[in-house]
Amino acid sequence: MSDLALDAELAGSVRLYDLNPEAALANEAIGNALGRRPEVKGVWTYKAVPRLEDALKGADFVICSILPGTFSEMQSDVHEPEKFGIYQSVGDTVGPGGLFRALRTIPMYVEIAQAIEKHCPRAWVINYTNPMSLCTRTLYATFPGIRAFGCCHEVFGTQALLAEMLGDLGVQAGVERHEIQVNVQGINHFTWLDSATWKGVDLFPLYREFVDKHFAEGFTSAHDGNWLNSYFASAHRVKFDLFRRYGRIAAAGDRHLAEFLPPWYLKSPEVARSWKFTLTPVSWRIEHKRELELQSQRLVAGTEAMKLASSGEEGIRQIKALVGLGDLVTNVNLPNQGQAPDLPLDAVVETNAVFGAGGIRPVSAGKMTPAIRTLVARHVGNQETILEAALNRDSQMAFQAFVNDPQVTTDPSDSRKLFDAMVKNTQAYLPRWER
Amino acid sequence: MSDLALDAELAGSVRLYDLNPEAALANEAIGNALGRRPEVKGVWTYKAVPRLEDALKGADFVICSILPGTFSEMQSDVHEPEKFGIYQSVGDTVGPGGLFRALRTIPMYVEIAQAIEKHCPRAWVINYTNPMSLCTRTLYATFPGIRAFGCCHEVFGTQALLAEMLGDLGVQAGVERHEIQVNVQGINHFTWLDSATWKGVDLFPLYREFVDKHFAEGFTSAHDGNWLNSYFASAHRVKFDLFRRYGRIAAAGDRHLAEFLPPWYLKSPEVARSWKFTLTPVSWRIEHKRELELQSQRLVAGTEAMKLASSGEEGIRQIKALVGLGDLVTNVNLPNQGQAPDLPLDAVVETNAVFGAGGIRPVSAGKMTPAIRTLVARHVGNQETILEAALNRDSQMAFQAFVNDPQVTTDPSDSRKLFDAMVKNTQAYLPRWER
Amino acid sequence: MSDLALDAELAGSVRLYDLNPEAALANEAIGNALGRRPEVKGVWTYKAVPRLEDALKGADFVICSILPGTFSEMQSDVHEPEKFGIYQSVGDTVGPGGLFRALRTIPMYVEIAQAIEKHCPRAWVINYTNPMSLCTRTLYATFPGIRAFGCCHEVFGTQALLAEMLGDLGVQAGVERHEIQVNVQGINHFTWLDSATWKGVDLFPLYREFVDKHFAEGFTSAHDGNWLNSYFASAHRVKFDLFRRYGRIAAAGDRHLAEFLPPWYLKSPEVARSWKFTLTPVSWRIEHKRELELQSQRLVAGTEAMKLASSGEEGIRQIKALVGLGDLVTNVNLPNQGQAPDLPLDAVVETNAVFGAGGIRPVSAGKMTPAIRTLVARHVGNQETILEAALNRDSQMAFQAFVNDPQVTTDPSDSRKLFDAMVKNTQAYLPRWER
Amino acid sequence: MSDLALDAELAGSVRLYDLNPEAALANEAIGNALGRRPEVKGVWTYKAVPRLEDALKGADFVICSILPGTFSEMQSDVHEPEKFGIYQSVGDTVGPGGLFRALRTIPMYVEIAQAIEKHCPRAWVINYTNPMSLCTRTLYATFPGIRAFGCCHEVFGTQALLAEMLGDLGVQAGVERHEIQVNVQGINHFTWLDSATWKGVDLFPLYREFVDKHFAEGFTSAHDGNWLNSYFASAHRVKFDLFRRYGRIAAAGDRHLAEFLPPWYLKSPEVARSWKFTLTPVSWRIEHKRELELQSQRLVAGTEAMKLASSGEEGIRQIKALVGLGDLVTNVNLPNQGQAPDLPLDAVVETNAVFGAGGIRPVSAGKMTPAIRTLVARHVGNQETILEAALNRDSQMAFQAFVNDPQVTTDPSDSRKLFDAMVKNTQAYLPRWER
Repeated sequence: MSDLALDAELAGSVRLYDLNPEAALANEAIGNALGRRPEVKGVWTYKAVPRLEDALKGADFVICSILPGTFSEMQSDVHEPEKFGIYQSVGDTVGPGGLFRALRTIPMYVEIAQAIEKHCPRAWVINYTNPMSLCTRTLYATFPGIRAFGCCHEVFGTQALLAEMLGDLGVQAGVERHEIQVNVQGINHFTWLDSATWKGVDLFPLYREFVDKHFAEGFTSAHDGNWLNSYFASAHRVKFDLFRRYGRIAAAGDRHLAEFLPPWYLKSPEVARSWKFTLTPVSWRIEHKRELELQSQRLVAGTEAMKLASSGEEGIRQIKALVGLGDLVTNVNLPNQGQAPDLPLDAVVETNAVFGAGGIRPVSAGKMTPAIRTLVARHVGNQETILEAALNRDSQMAFQAFVNDPQVTTDPSDSRKLFDAMVKNTQAYLPRWER
Repeated sequence: MSDLALDAELAGSVRLYDLNPEAALANEAIGNALGRRPEVKGVWTYKAVPRLEDALKGADFVICSILPGTFSEMQSDVHEPEKFGIYQSVGDTVGPGGLFRALRTIPMYVEIAQAIEKHCPRAWVINYTNPMSLCTRTLYATFPGIRAFGCCHEVFGTQALLAEMLGDLGVQAGVERHEIQVNVQGINHFTWLDSATWKGVDLFPLYREFVDKHFAEGFTSAHDGNWLNSYFASAHRVKFDLFRRYGRIAAAGDRHLAEFLPPWYLKSPEVARSWKFTLTPVSWRIEHKRELELQSQRLVAGTEAMKLASSGEEGIRQIKALVGLGDLVTNVNLPNQGQAPDLPLDAVVETNAVFGAGGIRPVSAGKMTPAIRTLVARHVGNQETILEAALNRDSQMAFQAFVNDPQVTTDPSDSRKLFDAMVKNTQAYLPRWER
Repeated sequence: MSDLALDAELAGSVRLYDLNPEAALANEAIGNALGRRPEVKGVWTYKAVPRLEDALKGADFVICSILPGTFSEMQSDVHEPEKFGIYQSVGDTVGPGGLFRALRTIPMYVEIAQAIEKHCPRAWVINYTNPMSLCTRTLYATFPGIRAFGCCHEVFGTQALLAEMLGDLGVQAGVERHEIQVNVQGINHFTWLDSATWKGVDLFPLYREFVDKHFAEGFTSAHDGNWLNSYFASAHRVKFDLFRRYGRIAAAGDRHLAEFLPPWYLKSPEVARSWKFTLTPVSWRIEHKRELELQSQRLVAGTEAMKLASSGEEGIRQIKALVGLGDLVTNVNLPNQGQAPDLPLDAVVETNAVFGAGGIRPVSAGKMTPAIRTLVARHVGNQETILEAALNRDSQMAFQAFVNDPQVTTDPSDSRKLFDAMVKNTQAYLPRWER
Repeated sequence: MSDLALDAELAGSVRLYDLNPEAALANEAIGNALGRRPEVKGVWTYKAVPRLEDALKGADFVICSILPGTFSEMQSDVHEPEKFGIYQSVGDTVGPGGLFRALRTIPMYVEIAQAIEKHCPRAWVINYTNPMSLCTRTLYATFPGIRAFGCCHEVFGTQALLAEMLGDLGVQAGVERHEIQVNVQGINHFTWLDSATWKGVDLFPLYREFVDKHFAEGFTSAHDGNWLNSYFASAHRVKFDLFRRYGRIAAAGDRHLAEFLPPWYLKSPEVARSWKFTLTPVSWRIEHKRELELQSQRLVAGTEAMKLASSGEEGIRQIKALVGLGDLVTNVNLPNQGQAPDLPLDAVVETNAVFGAGGIRPVSAGKMTPAIRTLVARHVGNQETILEAALNRDSQMAFQAFVNDPQVTTDPSDSRKLFDAMVKNTQAYLPRWER
């Protein structure tokens, strides 16, 4: 809403569909209130609708952002594995938590894709839900003609870090993250840069110097503040270590990166702390949601005014490019149609793409190093396994993916116990699975 | 020179190597004279050098633009086939002329690639020589690590036509060709657009209207002037006919397009005239070259001043992007690394690419229609055959490509006679071929 | 029937479905009569059924062999183009006739595939109908899980020729065609051998000698008899010429091979005769069919006994292999799953395959020479265009394929006239096409 | 020697090259002695030669079987990791031992490939050395035109097990392993069957029954004898467990299979024993070699006669097929040219192939399940990383592969310590590596 309000070139109407109608109505009120503020440049009307099809019919753009299930299932995703010594910093992408979240989400995204095919087949569909790769993959697997893409801001964070680096090393202060050009390879939350430049300057030698300077203590970004005070911050030590190991810049937050690897950085909460990032407990999410709901009530009541500021997401810039208001090159999640030459076709990959009125055209990302490709391909393979398991409600196949996850280093019998417990914990969202 | 002179952001030195040293020396004089003119913004020094390696050592950019052989061979390329009823409008890309030109050029480009590997392996290599696809293909086949790309302005001409169309149809006058966004598919001189927009407006319905309006008489572009007065102009009737047949916008000059097809438009000079384009005789090229040489003498003598104006080529913008002076999306010839998903890997294809300090990244062009793909793939196949024939000096294989060219519709025995005559005419440039 | 009758290892029941129920009933009578003959080893019962589904339900094997339309449409396929100077020796695979036959057949094969999916999805489906590649392609495009393959005896004929060659050259008389090992590349009726051996002897040098010996006059096979007396025979001069041109053994009858190429061998009936093969007129097919019907009546009436002899087809050997009675390596038409590394995936290609109880596994055929690949790929591209045209009833796309056929060398306006005439002639079988 | 001696259809001469000339001379004596025995059918002469080139010049077949390094390095391969809790049953294919063995072997195979290119480029090259995939991959990476393939008998063992199963289940006693038809997917020592039949009978339901019957106690093969008495035997419990987990038949010995997976079966010697297979200590290999040497001395001296019996290897049958003595379908290791559609091209894969005088043609193996493909692809990726590391002497890249091996579940710092120790232990065979 804030992004739309701040942009003078776009206007239109937004239909809000939420499984919780009251939430949609609150957002309707908040959104429409914005239109009455003088500093708002973009004229938008908001309307809560009772059914998904009411939201979709005739839509030009569809934005999907859901929580698959409740915090109760997320509690299982994140914390059940801890009983078996598996610690996850986020638990929504890969690992036991990411897998079960995917099993719940995929059937929902099948429904969403079917509804889009029926009601607005030519709409642009922007996905923000995790697990990003599998949500986007499911949309295309269900409706191959869909025009969907997945957006994530993790790469932007790494661009911001590289911009800060220029100040830290005394090259240039005040560089904006948009000035940093990068080539993006890999999959969502496990992206890698094999090229990064600023005004023609190769940033790799500088990054090596930067890593050497800050490896021991980590680097505290001005954007993040102290990592100890935020579940979303880190000191980039995982990123630095991966650079030393693999010679490429891993381009996501440390909390996400750590989950794609064996428990090198997540063997225990203490180990995570030594790498200077934290595990996000679901209890914090529950508390944080409560705060957001209270804030929503204040915004509706008018006792608090929405703070208008850019979200840092690129959704609005992408929308503008797609309607012809200037081309844009940015990273995005799309099925591989050749842009990732060393990953399977149709797998959802994250690379740069050119956005314009003619559509979204992925940019060839080139080949990864063999070692990085192998790390990434393991997750791509697991995602294909999970997709097939979810579509066929095949728990044997889901377990095959489970034990192949790098975080699952438990003994076979413990792996089975954990898997079964997680099925049981989340069975309300796994209907008609044969056991 | 003109482009370099007009740009304030670049400076440097240019080494000129020419088989004719006097030509290089004349260009040295002309180039250095520019630097003394007050309106010139880019500071460049020019230096003629006696050997290829002197030009290459330490170069950041290498620009290749050669005439393979003399006009005597080109006389054979273009006019020998006329004795057998095969008329070529250009004769430098495909058809009998393009094939023989390729057979002469490929060994030269092998040498160039070897010299670049030895003397400046990290240089960016810009090719302007035709046949574009095979020159670029040879560079990569010889030195796979080369950073070469091929530039051609034909697509720009189609963008300019679409810009003019907007004025002609009363949509908007004065649109610049850079404002037209297109998606480019295919191979050099046989490129196709499946998407064209201007500020978000889909140009396909407008183009259909435009074609209907002008099909019968053709459209005379303000840029070109009357096609009858210029060997390089046309009335776009071939392009219009191809749109009606294939539903996509062919994006090269009619003279080039016609040569990629059976003799629909080139059955005779009269048929070509009925489609409102002309065949360029080599006699004109000889005369034209004489004029250029006289002009060169005047420029050296200072009796004429070089007219400074943008060439319309994008070379300078590409160079600027590659050194970090702003990203650029434009069309370019590069080996297929996945950007053309329905053409063979490694074939040189023409698509858009993002140019930046991190290099050149092709943009996924998507699939062509099956019929267009089949037309294009036939030439790609022929090019692979010609490359192998030239590298192995295999005249049987060269003849296999010859009879598979769409323009070669002669009886087998005539095809053989023509081929043998063309070998004989150009044998000075086909050394060590076994016959 | 004869093949089944002669084999002692198989038994079962055959259900006969024909659009003409009387034909099915006649075959039922003929087939069942066989069972009463003492020399018959295979016990089979035959049953004519009134509906397609009656034939399919529970079937283990389905054999498809149809005439798409009547001889009236075939008359148009073969002879209408002659009015425009296009002569076809068969007219059922490629060329104008093959294209229109495909347009009629594809919708029928869509129905057949749907019925098989419904009634016997696990059955092995053997196709004998032409155009072979497109019939098989349609089955898979409609029901991707189908277990279909296409059989053709043309390669066997070339094996037989190579066996005869051994006698002719004095190497060894009496060699059986099964003793000749070949590697098969390409597509049905346009197959090529890049390897042929007999007991370890490389047959290529011998074939070169054989071609030299017989090129001028042709070679009359003992199997065929004089080519002048048979529409199906030839003197192999086309095959010999292709060997000299391309260095590989074309492996189909000359009548078929000639149709895949520009009118080198089919410019006129006289030219065909000079290459020593003949054009099969539809009048002969009508007459021949009448004879077969009369024979059928005699067989039903018992006034003639069916002559039991091997058909030379491999269908029975393939069926035996599939049920576990011994593995078999033979050539077959199947979607490309990698066996033809230089042709598009999913295109129907003809290569060797291993038949066994575990299914049919194609054998990697390796790459073709670039020139042969280009010739073959042109037809593969046309087939994809024709398939899409037929499925979408898109006459513009059908015409795109039409003018890209090597035999269609007419002027554009004549091509259009011919196409329109052929549409009109066969419109009873092109329902719901928009024009 | 035994296989050659027992075959009446082949004869010729064998040149023996060994780094230890005395071993070659001993084998020369033993081999030539065979020719004097009346029961020997194949006439062969043996000749020890002093230099590799003496062995290769003019060879039709080259057989490579080497120990890369000495047992001292193998001691490190197998037992050094045990200090860090990593137990390997063989240690020659994957895992820490397989990786270091590969690093030593690859440079040797580069030399072998270069020598073959120089001295006998058209020879058939049969590799028996482990790591099989990487040895074969190195041959092709060095000399792409080589005609090499890798042979392994592990799949035969599984065929034998399936044959025994038929007796055990009362279906049929005395079935030979050659009667079992299988489709082979995957890579050497980690092959999988998705189809197995005997005379048309689908063996999968029977195998399920067999696994259920013997899962708890394992099955003792008559061929192997009690697993406790042999380092090469097992009770197939790993294979049975993998069938239950993945639904496909893993087709190698349990000792090999276990090494491709996380330490499910190799967590400790006790765990391995519970799965009823043993770890082969290098001390046993040393002892065993001594016995073989003593036997060799007795054979040379004539105090013992070589026992003539089929080795069970298929080398001789493959050689016979390649020279035209009957076609053969069997499994073999070859670069992927499309036969493994879901693994990268050029990776060395193990599938069936047709052997004949025309060469070796891989059989399309079809796709694996996504979970099995992911397990296999991880090792393929590691192999590519190891190859590049060895060719470039890049220890950082070698370590990237090391920590990605499923057996390496140590903490990062321990992994580094182990890697460094293994480098040190085997540095005599890692010349010119920068550290």
